[in-house]
Amino acid sequence: MKRSDWLTAEGILYTDQYQLTMAQLYYRMGLHEKWAQFDYFFRSYPNYGSHRAGYCINAGLEWLVDWMLEVRFRDEDLEYLRGQVGRTGRRLFADDFLEWLRENGHFGAITLQAIPEGRVVHPNVPLVVVQGPLAMAQILETSLLNHLNYQTLIATKASRIRESGRGRLLLEFGLRRAQDKAAIAGARAALIGGADFTSNVGISHVLGYPPKGTHAHSMVQVFMALGEGELGAFRAYAEVYPDDCLLLVDTINTLESGIPNAIRVFEELRRKGHEPVGIRLDSGDLAYLSIQAARMLDEAGFPNTVIVLSNQLDELTIWEIITQIQREAPRYGVDPDRLINRLVYGVGTRLITSEGAPALDGVYKLVAVRDGGQWIPAIKISETPEKTLNPGYKKVWRLYDRRGKATADLLSLEDEDPRQMDPVVLRHPTDHTAFRVLPRSEITEIEPLLVDILRDGHLVYEFPTIEEIRQQRQDDLERLDAGVKRLINPQTYHVSLTERLWNLKQELIRKAH
Amino acid sequence: MKRSDWLTAEGILYTDQYQLTMAQLYYRMGLHEKWAQFDYFFRSYPNYGSHRAGYCINAGLEWLVDWMLEVRFRDEDLEYLRGQVGRTGRRLFADDFLEWLRENGHFGAITLQAIPEGRVVHPNVPLVVVQGPLAMAQILETSLLNHLNYQTLIATKASRIRESGRGRLLLEFGLRRAQDKAAIAGARAALIGGADFTSNVGISHVLGYPPKGTHAHSMVQVFMALGEGELGAFRAYAEVYPDDCLLLVDTINTLESGIPNAIRVFEELRRKGHEPVGIRLDSGDLAYLSIQAARMLDEAGFPNTVIVLSNQLDELTIWEIITQIQREAPRYGVDPDRLINRLVYGVGTRLITSEGAPALDGVYKLVAVRDGGQWIPAIKISETPEKTLNPGYKKVWRLYDRRGKATADLLSLEDEDPRQMDPVVLRHPTDHTAFRVLPRSEITEIEPLLVDILRDGHLVYEFPTIEEIRQQRQDDLERLDAGVKRLINPQTYHVSLTERLWNLKQELIRKAH
Repeated sequence: MKRSDWLTAEGILYTDQYQLTMAQLYYRMGLHEKWAQFDYFFRSYPNYGSHRAGYCINAGLEWLVDWMLEVRFRDEDLEYLRGQVGRTGRRLFADDFLEWLRENGHFGAITLQAIPEGRVVHPNVPLVVVQGPLAMAQILETSLLNHLNYQTLIATKASRIRESGRGRLLLEFGLRRAQDKAAIAGARAALIGGADFTSNVGISHVLGYPPKGTHAHSMVQVFMALGEGELGAFRAYAEVYPDDCLLLVDTINTLESGIPNAIRVFEELRRKGHEPVGIRLDSGDLAYLSIQAARMLDEAGFPNTVIVLSNQLDELTIWEIITQIQREAPRYGVDPDRLINRLVYGVGTRLITSEGAPALDGVYKLVAVRDGGQWIPAIKISETPEKTLNPGYKKVWRLYDRRGKATADLLSLEDEDPRQMDPVVLRHPTDHTAFRVLPRSEITEIEPLLVDILRDGHLVYEFPTIEEIRQQRQDDLERLDAGVKRLINPQTYHVSLTERLWNLKQELIRKAH
Repeated sequence: MKRSDWLTAEGILYTDQYQLTMAQLYYRMGLHEKWAQFDYFFRSYPNYGSHRAGYCINAGLEWLVDWMLEVRFRDEDLEYLRGQVGRTGRRLFADDFLEWLRENGHFGAITLQAIPEGRVVHPNVPLVVVQGPLAMAQILETSLLNHLNYQTLIATKASRIRESGRGRLLLEFGLRRAQDKAAIAGARAALIGGADFTSNVGISHVLGYPPKGTHAHSMVQVFMALGEGELGAFRAYAEVYPDDCLLLVDTINTLESGIPNAIRVFEELRRKGHEPVGIRLDSGDLAYLSIQAARMLDEAGFPNTVIVLSNQLDELTIWEIITQIQREAPRYGVDPDRLINRLVYGVGTRLITSEGAPALDGVYKLVAVRDGGQWIPAIKISETPEKTLNPGYKKVWRLYDRRGKATADLLSLEDEDPRQMDPVVLRHPTDHTAFRVLPRSEITEIEPLLVDILRDGHLVYEFPTIEEIRQQRQDDLERLDAGVKRLINPQTYHVSLTERLWNLKQELIRKAH
C-alpha cells in the first residue's frame, strides 16, 4: 500500500461497514444523539490449547486514545460513502446523514473510563466504559476492540513467559513472523507484559528503548562462502564490537565448531582488554546444549558470559528447559542454578502471535441507554448463561484479603460503594447458588479500578510511561495468588456481582423472556 | 501511538537491530557492497493442529515493493542510531558507516524476482529472489519476511475456507479480533485468497471494493431498551434500507422471535414493493437453525432470501455444517442443495488470525555471494536435513502433466532449462533414493514461475489488480489435483531438484563437513 493510503485505511474508516449503516439508521430514527453506554470486556482467558492463562495484563489504552483524538470523517471519507450504492444501485448514505457526520463525525463527545494499562485484569470485568452519543459510540466499537484485544493478549503472553523464565532477561524477537504491522503494537505490549527489550528498531526508537540484537547465521555464511569460515566471522564481529561481543554458535555445529571458535575469539578479546558478553543457541536441544556450553565456557575461564536461548520458545518450553537443566546439569558438573541465572530468552513467533490463542475474545456491548434523563439498563440474553450481559452503568472494585492479596473483583451498580458495606456479599455472575459473604474485617483494602480518561472528548488523564506501566504490572502480580499465576491449570480468580446488580440482572432476564 | 511516530515505526527502521549491526560489520570489513543473493521461501504448509494445508496462495508482494520504494534512512533515523551505545557506553554505530547509510541506505540497488501474487505455491521453492549489495539486502530481510509471511498465510486460509463453502459468497469480518493493524493487510490477503468482500471500510476504500455489513445485536438492544422490541428494530431497518434488508435474528431467540419478526417485516416490505435480502444467524447450531430458517422462509414465500452464517467459522466448521445439512435437511422437507446454495459465510477471527497456525515459517536465506565476478553458492547445514539450504542462483519451473494438472515444481541452476531436457529427472531435495524420471512426452507444459519485479531498484513490473490476482488463483487451483486441495490430510505435491542442483548441494554439504 502507498503511504498516502494509510491515512484512509487507519483513519476513522478503520471500522466495520455495519457501524456506519447502524449510525445512519440511528440518525434517521432520531436516536443518534441519545446517550448510550458500552462496556468493553473479555469473556475468557486466552486458552493456548494445552494450557490457559489465569489472569490477563491490560494493555492498548494509550494508543486507542491517540487514535480517537486524531481521527474524524474527512471530506475524502465522506465522498467515498457518498459513492456507495445498495443492491438496486440507489445510494446507501443520504446527504443529510453525511452532513451530520461532517460536523459530528469524531469522538469529541465521548466520555471514557478505563482500567489503566499494566493492571492484572479478569473476564467479564468492564475494562473500558464508553458513554456518548449513540451513533459515534457505535462507530467506535470496531477500532476499540482492535486496539485493545491484541495488546492485552500479547502483554498477557509476555507476562507468562517472563514468569516461566524466573524473571531473567527476556527479549522480543517477533517482527519477522508477526502478523504484519501487529509487530509494532505487539512489541509495545510485550514490553508492558514483561519483555525487557525488543529487536524491533522502529518501535524501540518511538518508545525510547535501546533495541537488542547482534548477528544472524547469514553473517557466518558470508565468511564461509568467502573462505574465512566461522572463526573468521567471529573474529570480525569481535573486532567491530569488542565490548558487545555475543556470538551465534550454531551455524555449523554448536559443540564441535561454534563454541570452540567462540572461546578462541573470547580469549583473543580478553588479551586485548575486552570482556565478551556471551553466546546464542538457536537450534537443537537447548537444555542439553546450554549445559555443555556452560561447562565449556566455565572451563575456558568465561563463567560470567551469558547464554541466550532462542528458537520457538514459549512459557512451557522455557519451563521444560529449566526443569531439564535442574535434572541434568549436575551430571556434567554444572551448577543448575548458576546456569539458569545466566540464561537470556529471545522469544519470537509464539509471543508476538500468541500462538495457540491468537485472539482475545473481547467484546463491546451496549449496557445502557439514557432516555428522559434516566439510564435504562440494556441486556442481551444468551442460551449460554455466561454470555448474558451484566447490565447497566457499573463500578469495578478489587478486594484484598488479610495477606494483602487480591481475592476478588466486584462489579457494583454505579451508586453503590462496597467500602460502606459490612459484610460484603459477592454473588457469582450466573450461578444463583454460589455466593460469598465477607466480613469487612477480612478485607484490608477495596480499590476502585476504573479511572477517568476522556471527559466529553477531552483528555483528563496523564498516561504513564512504559516503565511505570511495567511497575504497575509487577505490583499487581505480587498481590496475586501464586495459584492464579500457575502456568498450567491455574486457580480461578473470583469476579462477582453485588446483591443489587445481581437482582437487576435477574429482573431484566425475566422481562426479556 | 501518535501518527507522526508511524513514519518512524513503519519506515526503514521496521527491521531487527541485528540487521544494522551486521550491516556495519560488512561495511567495516569492506563487504557491504559485495553482491549477495537471498531466497525467500517457506519450509512447511500451515498446520492448523488437526489439519494442514496442501498448498499456499502467494500474497504480499505489491505492498512489500511499495514499502521498498518509499523508505530510506532519514536524518532522524540516523540521529537515533548515532545515539545508540553499547555496554560500556561507547557509540555502537560510527560516523563513517552512518554517512554511508545516508547516501546508500535505500533499496535503489536491489534486483528482485518473484512468483506473482495469487499463484499456488509450495514449500522450499524460492518465492522471492533478492540480489543486491550485501548490507542493504541484509537490512531488507526482516521487513520482507514481515510483509510476505502474513499475507500468504491469510490468502491460504481464505482459499481453504472458500473451497469448503463450495465457492459460495465469503465475507471477511475479522477487523475487531485481528492482531492490531494486521487487519488491513489481512483483509487484502483474504480477498486475494477467496473472500468476496470485507466488512473493513478503510481497506475497501483503498482497494476500490464495496464493504459489506448490515447491523449488530446492539441495534436490536437499543430498540428493546426503549420499549420497541426486536420488531421495532427490524421495522426501522427495513424503513431505512428497504432494498438491502438483511436482519440479524438471534438477539433474543432465533426460532421463536427473530425469524418470525423478520418474516413479518419482509411481508410488510413486499407490500411496499421491495424484496428482502435475507437473514443472519450468529449463534447456536448453525446447521440446524439454517434448516429451520430455510423452512420458515420458504413457507412464508421468501425462498430466494439468503442465509448468512457467522460465529467462529473456519473451513472445518463450514464443512461440518454442510455435511449436517445434507443429512438432516430432508427430514424437515428442505432440499439440502438449495439450502447450501443460499448460504453466505461471514468469517472473522479464525480467518484473519489463521487460528491454529498464526505464522507462516517463511525464511530469507543467503544462498550465494559474488566474488571476483563469480557467484559462490552458500549453504547452511542443519541437523534436520529438510532445513539444509538449496544453494546458489536458481530458477523455478512448474511441470504440467497430460491432464494439464501441475505435477511438480522443479528448482534448477540458473543456466539450466528443463524445456531442453528429455527426460526430465526430478530429485527429491533430501532423500537420495527418491527420484522420478519423466519423459518429455508426459509433460504438456514447463512454466517458469519467477518474473522480474525490480531491476537495480527500478520497478519493471506492472502489478495486477486484485481481480486479476483472484483470477490467477482460480486458474491455478483448477490446475491443481483435487487430492492436494483436500482440507484434511492432503496429498503431498512434489518439489524437486534437477540433477545438477542436487549434485551441487551434496558437494557443498561435503565441503562444510
